Amino acid sequence: MNSEATEERVLEAVAERRELVNEALDDDVPMKSPERLYEATRYLLKAGGKRLRPTVSLLTAEALADVEPLSVDYHAFPALDGSEIDVMSAATSIEVIQSFTLIHDDIMDDDDLRRGVPAVHREYDTETAILAGDTLYAKAFELLSETGAAPENGLEAVRRLATTCTQICEGQALDVEFERRTEVLPEEYLEMIELKTAVLYGAAAATAATLMGADDDTVDALYRYGIDSGRAFQIQDDVLDLTVPSETLGKQRGSDLVENKETLITLHARQHGVDVDGLVAAADVETVSEAEIESAVSRLEESGSIAYAEAKAEELTANAKRHLDVLPDNEARDLLADIADYLITRGY
Amino acid sequence: MNSEATEERVLEAVAERRELVNEALDDDVPMKSPERLYEATRYLLKAGGKRLRPTVSLLTAEALADVEPLSVDYHAFPALDGSEIDVMSAATSIEVIQSFTLIHDDIMDDDDLRRGVPAVHREYDTETAILAGDTLYAKAFELLSETGAAPENGLEAVRRLATTCTQICEGQALDVEFERRTEVLPEEYLEMIELKTAVLYGAAAATAATLMGADDDTVDALYRYGIDSGRAFQIQDDVLDLTVPSETLGKQRGSDLVENKETLITLHARQHGVDVDGLVAAADVETVSEAEIESAVSRLEESGSIAYAEAKAEELTANAKRHLDVLPDNEARDLLADIADYLITRGY
Repeated sequence: MNSEATEERVLEAVAERRELVNEALDDDVPMKSPERLYEATRYLLKAGGKRLRPTVSLLTAEALADVEPLSVDYHAFPALDGSEIDVMSAATSIEVIQSFTLIHDDIMDDDDLRRGVPAVHREYDTETAILAGDTLYAKAFELLSETGAAPENGLEAVRRLATTCTQICEGQALDVEFERRTEVLPEEYLEMIELKTAVLYGAAAATAATLMGADDDTVDALYRYGIDSGRAFQIQDDVLDLTVPSETLGKQRGSDLVENKETLITLHARQHGVDVDGLVAAADVETVSEAEIESAVSRLEESGSIAYAEAKAEELTANAKRHLDVLPDNEARDLLADIADYLITRGY
Repeated sequence: MNSEATEERVLEAVAERRELVNEALDDDVPMKSPERLYEATRYLLKAGGKRLRPTVSLLTAEALADVEPLSVDYHAFPALDGSEIDVMSAATSIEVIQSFTLIHDDIMDDDDLRRGVPAVHREYDTETAILAGDTLYAKAFELLSETGAAPENGLEAVRRLATTCTQICEGQALDVEFERRTEVLPEEYLEMIELKTAVLYGAAAATAATLMGADDDTVDALYRYGIDSGRAFQIQDDVLDLTVPSETLGKQRGSDLVENKETLITLHARQHGVDVDGLVAAADVETVSEAEIESAVSRLEESGSIAYAEAKAEELTANAKRHLDVLPDNEARDLLADIADYLITRGY
């Protein structure tokens, strides 16, 4: 696997769809009265984002329809029963949910910045941010209920999205709970990131497949593709925090260690006798030295903890790609496989 | 109309269904892991509430099916096409949405108490309260997507609920905006309470009717029944704040005036030359005197503002009841009419 070529193909596929997704989001979440509410609702959507999840939805539909990528209008897309559906609405509903969760998470975590701009509760206020998130939440269900798909498929997609949202809330609650606990098992951590991060990748693929009219086994396999890729993505995030220079990361390398955030890496290290709490003495990212981080990372390399996480991410990615076997052999399927690879080979 | 007999019939109908609704809520939102999240999610639902909105849903289904009230299992209820649906899930989904909006509203308004107990963000914390509201939000859509109704009806009900949630957010945003504005027109106030309060009554009736398989005109009429009753309910709330003794209200009479909250009454008074801002000099409900409130109320009576609001509520209630003409003439329909009357004749 040539990861540079893979990355190039993925970034091109995402960029080609990003413009279309952004146009659709602008139509789906229009500026209207009350203006302050809708400004806040649109603020984070306008601040950027790769649009990886909607790209997964669109490629899933293209792979299932076995059409040449970007050859058919996403708003009038051929479902498997020959009817036309608006598969773009499924894609934007996922991005809208992602946006709602980020807005509410930033309030809960009291984070100041998101996508390089002030978080919504900083740019506006907490009340407006809560309400902006709630508005996006409803919008996602509106979008998914108006795709023109066969009603039983539309309803099944809505049910999947609702369950996904419940799981994301559970994942966020577990994340908060783990910060207060003295012991977290690696299995519990993997469960948490499945709920908090991976299920939305799963839903991105599965809702598109359901609306297209794919059979249950196919939908389930594509859901597993999203779940496994999403888990690998989160584990890779934890690895990158330790292995990528601060200037490339855009934040202090090793910040998870400084902030005592448990990851698969620290959990493995604990189980192998490493004094994780004593690895970094500095109390915050402003005072930590590069030498201290370097020494901590060396210790985690010695215990095999970083290699363990990398191996876990690779295993999940291999699983994810195997699930794509249910799809016809075509360019869109290859791009979905490339995205799974990209999620763990990306440099930051 | 004998309002005491009406009130008795309504309270009995509501009480008879409350136990069933509470049992269903306990099943629909069960205790599970993560425990702190689900405790918070269930906390307000367990704290009480009349269950007026789910009662409207259940009576709507009974009126449409033309069955004797309480004679059929709500979980296996005969839709108009002869199939069986879980109309209770439609009822609980509305109560779950109501609960979610109260939890988030109390954070936004920084209110300490709700239903006689600490608000969720006081009993737990703001992070947990945001997440508990978000969890209920998803749960409502899950419930509504699993009623067993014909898929096109299920999907239409979901679409209605999503639009309703968007409107509730818009109403809350307008309410906040009006507090900052120097002038609000009565029409704007009526629009705000329609969005913030009435649409959920509309959805309570309309989603049940849609799931039952009623035709579009019937669904629309029942939606209007809910909207007009809900608007009358909110206007009556504003009247009661001025006309009911503090001990009966359970809070300081005239608190809206002390807190400079605009209502249909104050907006009418302003348009008729009353210096509303000068009516009550006291800065908070702790220091206001009964004499000061009495004098303010007299002034609002002289300007005809209270009578104007009462007449408006009565007009809306009459409209609401006329919309029930689409239903078969039966006991459930009579009870829906009684509920509309009760919403404006209730003493507090």
